[in-house]
Amino acid sequence: MASETTQALWGAALPAFDEAAAAAARAHQTQLTKPPGSLGRLEDLAVFYAGARGAFPVAAPSRARVYVFAADHGVTAEGVSPYPSSVTAAMVANFVAGGAAISVLTRALDVELAVVDVGVASPIPGGAGRSELLSFRVRPGTANFLREPAMTRAEAEQALDVGARLAHDAANEGVELLGAGEMGIGNTTAAAAVVAALTGAAAESVVGRGTGVDDAGLERKIDVVRGALTRHRPDRGDALGALAAVGGLEIAGMAGLMLGGAARRVPVVVDGFISGAAALVATRLAPRARDYLCFSHLSAERGHRVVYDALDARPLLDLGMRLGEGTGAALAIQLLRAAVRLQSEMATFASAGVANRAG
Amino acid sequence: MASETTQALWGAALPAFDEAAAAAARAHQTQLTKPPGSLGRLEDLAVFYAGARGAFPVAAPSRARVYVFAADHGVTAEGVSPYPSSVTAAMVANFVAGGAAISVLTRALDVELAVVDVGVASPIPGGAGRSELLSFRVRPGTANFLREPAMTRAEAEQALDVGARLAHDAANEGVELLGAGEMGIGNTTAAAAVVAALTGAAAESVVGRGTGVDDAGLERKIDVVRGALTRHRPDRGDALGALAAVGGLEIAGMAGLMLGGAARRVPVVVDGFISGAAALVATRLAPRARDYLCFSHLSAERGHRVVYDALDARPLLDLGMRLGEGTGAALAIQLLRAAVRLQSEMATFASAGVANRAG
Repeated sequence: MASETTQALWGAALPAFDEAAAAAARAHQTQLTKPPGSLGRLEDLAVFYAGARGAFPVAAPSRARVYVFAADHGVTAEGVSPYPSSVTAAMVANFVAGGAAISVLTRALDVELAVVDVGVASPIPGGAGRSELLSFRVRPGTANFLREPAMTRAEAEQALDVGARLAHDAANEGVELLGAGEMGIGNTTAAAAVVAALTGAAAESVVGRGTGVDDAGLERKIDVVRGALTRHRPDRGDALGALAAVGGLEIAGMAGLMLGGAARRVPVVVDGFISGAAALVATRLAPRARDYLCFSHLSAERGHRVVYDALDARPLLDLGMRLGEGTGAALAIQLLRAAVRLQSEMATFASAGVANRAG
Repeated sequence: MASETTQALWGAALPAFDEAAAAAARAHQTQLTKPPGSLGRLEDLAVFYAGARGAFPVAAPSRARVYVFAADHGVTAEGVSPYPSSVTAAMVANFVAGGAAISVLTRALDVELAVVDVGVASPIPGGAGRSELLSFRVRPGTANFLREPAMTRAEAEQALDVGARLAHDAANEGVELLGAGEMGIGNTTAAAAVVAALTGAAAESVVGRGTGVDDAGLERKIDVVRGALTRHRPDRGDALGALAAVGGLEIAGMAGLMLGGAARRVPVVVDGFISGAAALVATRLAPRARDYLCFSHLSAERGHRVVYDALDARPLLDLGMRLGEGTGAALAIQLLRAAVRLQSEMATFASAGVANRAG
């Protein structure tokens, strides 16, 4: 239930991006033993990190953590996914047991993994595992938003608050970089509806094949999104309303994580299309959140380009991935870390005794 | 001096790519707990690695090593770089001392670094450092190829052999993945000339700004490449001849590393434009080498697209980098490792008890 206390957390005022720290980082980059600009976007990443953290010099994040928010979707009743809803719970067990893609990637890349049940509909099978499972189930999945609102505004606020609280907890524990991933059968449909609601984009430009629907399934997804928008008529200026009407609990959780991270100057790496929809929600709720977000990759999911255009953002990676779970975020975390290490550990022309330009 | 013995090493017959191992890896990918194809190019990378290594299952490469080949270029006399030639030797010292970009990246990404002086013109300043410096100087830099051949065919063969021998040594030591990087003031001009010679591309389409020449410098570089091609008239079918006429010792060293790696089924990650020119040489000398190459990134250097077209290859990363040194290769090594770990460590639908598609 949304009380004033919980709302105060995800709705906290955000600090301004530290332009002075970013400028100091940018100036330092020109002193490093490389032609100016030759590390391309790695330089931008390191400068971004300094400005977001509000410090220069700034050490590379030693503790980074990906949160995977899992939730179910009533809209699966409309046949929008080739997988049954029960796969959400089964995959949560797989995350915890260490067998999912994000489990392997976080192990391989020295990133912490936390799995959050923010609204799974079925019991999670299995016992203890290698990753922590955090149970903050707001409700057992959303309602079918083609027929009724996915959730109440209070529930959406509660899920936002779950994410925001986790970001604050992580900051208190010394985590310096976050990633926002998700799992939820049916959630490309919810994300598409949210993106359409908040950008005004047509259903057919934001609906993609998700985990792999066929042509008929794709048509069904487009019809469902179109129908839901007709039913709920979400207001483009009311992100919370759109989230409640056609969104998902994991989308809300990720948006909350982004807001909570920004509040604490802990940058959040956005994953794919669903995570991007959450970024859209977060930045509509608090535009300054944009300054703390790092966009990892371009998903193969069709609507992702619409999200990037709306956020005026550019992905770091384009590897044809479309898995979610935070897999793209984990890869980008590694890039960001490497970028900041370059900034802090490279020799300068002066320290290395290397001649700068001849002229 | 090229003896029959040395030529036998870089000119060794190459094994065929193991299509059966690749097919087994591809089939295994469909059993992993993810929608088919949803890891995009990470799946292709892992399949490539199985086929190149000739084994499935195959463990992710625990030992990976980037070789940075350093050499000088007589063509700098024509004013093709804003940096003096002495920077090559100074940067070699910087690599060894741990302060260069590739030093930091290899430390950050758990990759071994080896620096090879295959033709630096000046003495290397400084003493012992964190990385091994390998001295195999074939000659102290090339001649000015606008006036005379850069080197003799025998010298080109000798430099090829340096690289090939290092790949064999690495394979004998248990290194499972290689990266080919370089340092050499003036070497974008040599690489452009090699690419033009081997592809027939016009000088203006392969010459870029390198470390950052101004408009006048760019015109000079184009004139130099055009003039060199007019003087030497390299035969497109004679890669060794083109390498000797207008190439560089580090380009030859990298090409040799690629051939030696392929001979031992140790895949080689190609770095940027100069490394790409070496890949062109290697694959012209032995077309099968192509099957053992992984292409890391698209450099901001203009001619790199010509190289990718000629090799029918696609870069993994596009981060606006143009530093060389193997920096792009180091990042791609990390991607490849992650990709193979996903392939070998992810649970299958059966092992995790996750339902596959509903239909």
